[in-house]
Amino acid sequence: MRKLAISILLFCILLLHAVLAFAADRDTGVLMQTDRDFAKATAEKGVDGWMSYMAPGAVLLGAQPKVTPDAIRATMTEELQAGAHLTWEPAKADLIGDGDLGYTIGRFEFKATDKDGKTINFTGSYMTTWQKQKDGSWKVIGDIGSPDKPH
Amino acid sequence: MRKLAISILLFCILLLHAVLAFAADRDTGVLMQTDRDFAKATAEKGVDGWMSYMAPGAVLLGAQPKVTPDAIRATMTEELQAGAHLTWEPAKADLIGDGDLGYTIGRFEFKATDKDGKTINFTGSYMTTWQKQKDGSWKVIGDIGSPDKPH
Repeated sequence: MRKLAISILLFCILLLHAVLAFAADRDTGVLMQTDRDFAKATAEKGVDGWMSYMAPGAVLLGAQPKVTPDAIRATMTEELQAGAHLTWEPAKADLIGDGDLGYTIGRFEFKATDKDGKTINFTGSYMTTWQKQKDGSWKVIGDIGSPDKPH
Repeated sequence: MRKLAISILLFCILLLHAVLAFAADRDTGVLMQTDRDFAKATAEKGVDGWMSYMAPGAVLLGAQPKVTPDAIRATMTEELQAGAHLTWEPAKADLIGDGDLGYTIGRFEFKATDKDGKTINFTGSYMTTWQKQKDGSWKVIGDIGSPDKPH
């Protein structure tokens, strides 16, 4: 009888672990998918697609951060000029703390033609910080890209 | 002779892997230590300690981000009021891309007494984004904390 109780207890613990692991995987999966949707929206709708994933208070991080919706829109309008392609793919997502905060890390590629007709093409890594909104959706609160150095 | 050449080649590949793994570990180790030094500087010197780890362009992320050194100083001065203790410990560090960008994730604890003499005490998770500066030091470009929800 005692052995049975221990077996049931162990089974319940294993089940709980499995459920928690499944829940965590599901949430990081949601974050991966949201980042892919963000990339798709930007590819299809340009700056409007980009802006639709910005949380209130979103910031493009860096030495000269862009800290207002207008500043972000101006920067991304310039970056996503006619003919420019900014694409990215997350390699990793994870949640932090109680699950209202998370990040994605991945690689991006930027292709464009400058005003002299010269092709610009470079790759890099990025990190995006996500915050779950009151409606349950994930939005970007911080984003930074790091172009690859010439090797 | 051919076997020897293959052996030497394999040995060199293994050595290269070991060196690269060591280099990556060393860099994430530096980031872990830098985050601990940041916590120590803040515990010992208050807001001046905090500010000494801010990169140019550092931002405290959130719905109402703090985006200038003055705004960060004002916020942290209020948070680190007399008698308040903000402590943290990184659980994880990683580098992104070419190694000029990284993050630490960990847990923080905040203890203070409010103006009515009531004790405030809560824990939470944080994520700090770091950028390597020209002088080789790591500084904070983005920081966000997420207090634990009541369970």
